[in-house]
Amino acid sequence: MTPLRTAAIVAVGSELLTPHRADTNSLHLTGQLNDLGIDVRAKYVVRDDRREIIACVNGALAHADLVITTGGLGPTDDDVTREAVAEACGLALSEDAQVLAVIRDRFARRGITMAENNRRQAQVPEGAAPLANVNGTAPGLWIERGAKVIVLLPGPPRELETMYASLVEPRLAPRTAGRRLLRRVIKITGRAESSVDAVAQPIYQGFRHWPIPIETTILAARGQIELHLVAAAADVAAVNDALDRAVAALTGAVGPAVFSVDGRSLEQVVGQQLDARRYTIAVAESCTGGLVMVRLTDVPGSSAWVKGGVVAYANDVKIRELGVPASMIAAHGAVSEPVAAAMARGIAHRSGADVGVGVTGIAGPAGGTVDKPVGTVVMAIDLPSGRHAVQTRQFAGDRRLIRQLAAQAALDLVRRTLTIE
Amino acid sequence: MTPLRTAAIVAVGSELLTPHRADTNSLHLTGQLNDLGIDVRAKYVVRDDRREIIACVNGALAHADLVITTGGLGPTDDDVTREAVAEACGLALSEDAQVLAVIRDRFARRGITMAENNRRQAQVPEGAAPLANVNGTAPGLWIERGAKVIVLLPGPPRELETMYASLVEPRLAPRTAGRRLLRRVIKITGRAESSVDAVAQPIYQGFRHWPIPIETTILAARGQIELHLVAAAADVAAVNDALDRAVAALTGAVGPAVFSVDGRSLEQVVGQQLDARRYTIAVAESCTGGLVMVRLTDVPGSSAWVKGGVVAYANDVKIRELGVPASMIAAHGAVSEPVAAAMARGIAHRSGADVGVGVTGIAGPAGGTVDKPVGTVVMAIDLPSGRHAVQTRQFAGDRRLIRQLAAQAALDLVRRTLTIE
Repeated sequence: MTPLRTAAIVAVGSELLTPHRADTNSLHLTGQLNDLGIDVRAKYVVRDDRREIIACVNGALAHADLVITTGGLGPTDDDVTREAVAEACGLALSEDAQVLAVIRDRFARRGITMAENNRRQAQVPEGAAPLANVNGTAPGLWIERGAKVIVLLPGPPRELETMYASLVEPRLAPRTAGRRLLRRVIKITGRAESSVDAVAQPIYQGFRHWPIPIETTILAARGQIELHLVAAAADVAAVNDALDRAVAALTGAVGPAVFSVDGRSLEQVVGQQLDARRYTIAVAESCTGGLVMVRLTDVPGSSAWVKGGVVAYANDVKIRELGVPASMIAAHGAVSEPVAAAMARGIAHRSGADVGVGVTGIAGPAGGTVDKPVGTVVMAIDLPSGRHAVQTRQFAGDRRLIRQLAAQAALDLVRRTLTIE
Repeated sequence: MTPLRTAAIVAVGSELLTPHRADTNSLHLTGQLNDLGIDVRAKYVVRDDRREIIACVNGALAHADLVITTGGLGPTDDDVTREAVAEACGLALSEDAQVLAVIRDRFARRGITMAENNRRQAQVPEGAAPLANVNGTAPGLWIERGAKVIVLLPGPPRELETMYASLVEPRLAPRTAGRRLLRRVIKITGRAESSVDAVAQPIYQGFRHWPIPIETTILAARGQIELHLVAAAADVAAVNDALDRAVAALTGAVGPAVFSVDGRSLEQVVGQQLDARRYTIAVAESCTGGLVMVRLTDVPGSSAWVKGGVVAYANDVKIRELGVPASMIAAHGAVSEPVAAAMARGIAHRSGADVGVGVTGIAGPAGGTVDKPVGTVVMAIDLPSGRHAVQTRQFAGDRRLIRQLAAQAALDLVRRTLTIE
């Protein structure tokens, strides 16, 4: 039997074409299918429309060995997935007495007489296997079409997930190529995407020609770049080994901008650095308004190494709470390297933390000047060794993005400085 | 010219076919297109694969008047949307000198020499109009193909949203059928979804039978419930009038839990309340780790009414920085109403703010006890009139959700208390 290597997911439902509803079933199914070494090649969302479902299923069958549809199996006139897929496959539908009995019984047990329209849910295409639904009335269907398989699942997540786990996964497992699909993520910060790609691309291009080929995707958002590596093979140890070598090659080339290869977030990495050195940290923030502290305290167990923080929005708070000299603000401005350094020193001193961090800047939209335009951010760190570091950055974006980029850069300054402490 | 009535959205990106990444751009675009009376008929997610993008775009063109692609316009070898769409339309690509100059200039302004691979982004299909990207290097494209339109947008949401609003929407507006789809959002907090729905559902069910029918959707996330009302007709004034009446009926029934009917966020509402009373605010946070401050300082112009804040994670910070008596913590525990009230008083006093807010609680996963399980949060507010308010809440969820629910509840306590101040 030809093994099933690729899948496409067709989500049926007009509500999934509104601005408020994302298709999340496909994320769950993708994870499950990947675990079986099946790669999801495409996803579709279509209305409850017979003609469009047929076109979509046919398109999906052209690109994938396995097509899973979700939704549109209900009893109402809107629900046409069963009929559409039967038509796409050229299969006649007929009422399955056993399926009908189960549906009737389900209603009877709840003391309700089955409505006549529920009868439609007992229609089964010739040769298809009905999949029992323990959480609802709509049975699923398993349809073979040559070497390909089409599975129809109900839309409600609880019904779909139970049906997949109990009835679909066991049928798929022996049909797969026996390979496992594994994934690694290299997280990078402090470099532009194009600069990372210029270094990484010549390397990861080569991965495609390895005995176990590795697919690489580059993603960038809010000051963080991620290289996603995926490989599949029957031999899990060999896949892991290939991924290890690929990760080593890329991290070596990208250098200290890599902060994690095991899923950890930047704040988790910083937290572990602090923990390992038995340091505590405190943060004085102006333009980031508490974002650095929120990220640090998001880490479970952070109370062990977070002392506290001050959001010093007003100058008088900087002066009174952090001991920044008023004359320094007058001479250099609130957004300046001396002030950021004084904030870092001040918060460490006040809170009794080992590491102090100061962030001051102009997030906009107002407040920019010719010398210090919107997006100017100064950050500083103060360490128990007496060492300190200051950095001025210029970020582009709206208020929210500038704040996010500034928090990311401040955490990265902490990470890089602690690495050599 | 045939009006554009229907659209399909093609999201390109292998990362969108992993278990970890949902396509959210299409939700934004659907909302925008609906506003122009354009109905989204189908959505597709495909890999960065030339052949599959071509098949998908051709499929989309068969079903919709307008096809929008997102992603795959970057400078790397992975990015093939431009080439694939040009091929699907049978259009030759050539380098556009003006587009290239803009990209070069963007790099030059940041003091970086353009990498050679960025040159690909200046390729434009014949007859297509490039769409300038003020937030990134990848320009978009507007392509006409008979009566149909294909728009290529970059994947990063900020780039896509700005480009759509400034360059795509103005080109689409005159090409639509003249029907307008309008939307209102009623934002509610401090009540359970089921309790809101029990009151609202009998009312909004009737809206479907109005001369201009109104569709209502209820959405709930992170302590906030939203009632989305949508109506469409050629007569904008009549639609607005119907929506006004619907909003009035629902807000009247739901009562003071409604905090906004005009799009404002909870922090914007609180900011305007403070501004109107010429009050400043300062926040002392424990379990929320700065989240309340981040939300307040997210509002542009918040420096006018935000004094500052303290994240008092450690007890000694609560004692030293906020003047909470050590004996009070010993007697009642750090998560207690007296301590929350003392934090609110302490931060107002220290920072010289008119309004002080204190939040203390157990976000978990560790730290819970039988008396005070994970999810226990106490919040307090101190006002210049001498009035103060304290509230203990019990939230369910993981660490992140508990923190978000606590910040939302604290802001709502401020809103409700200021309403009667």
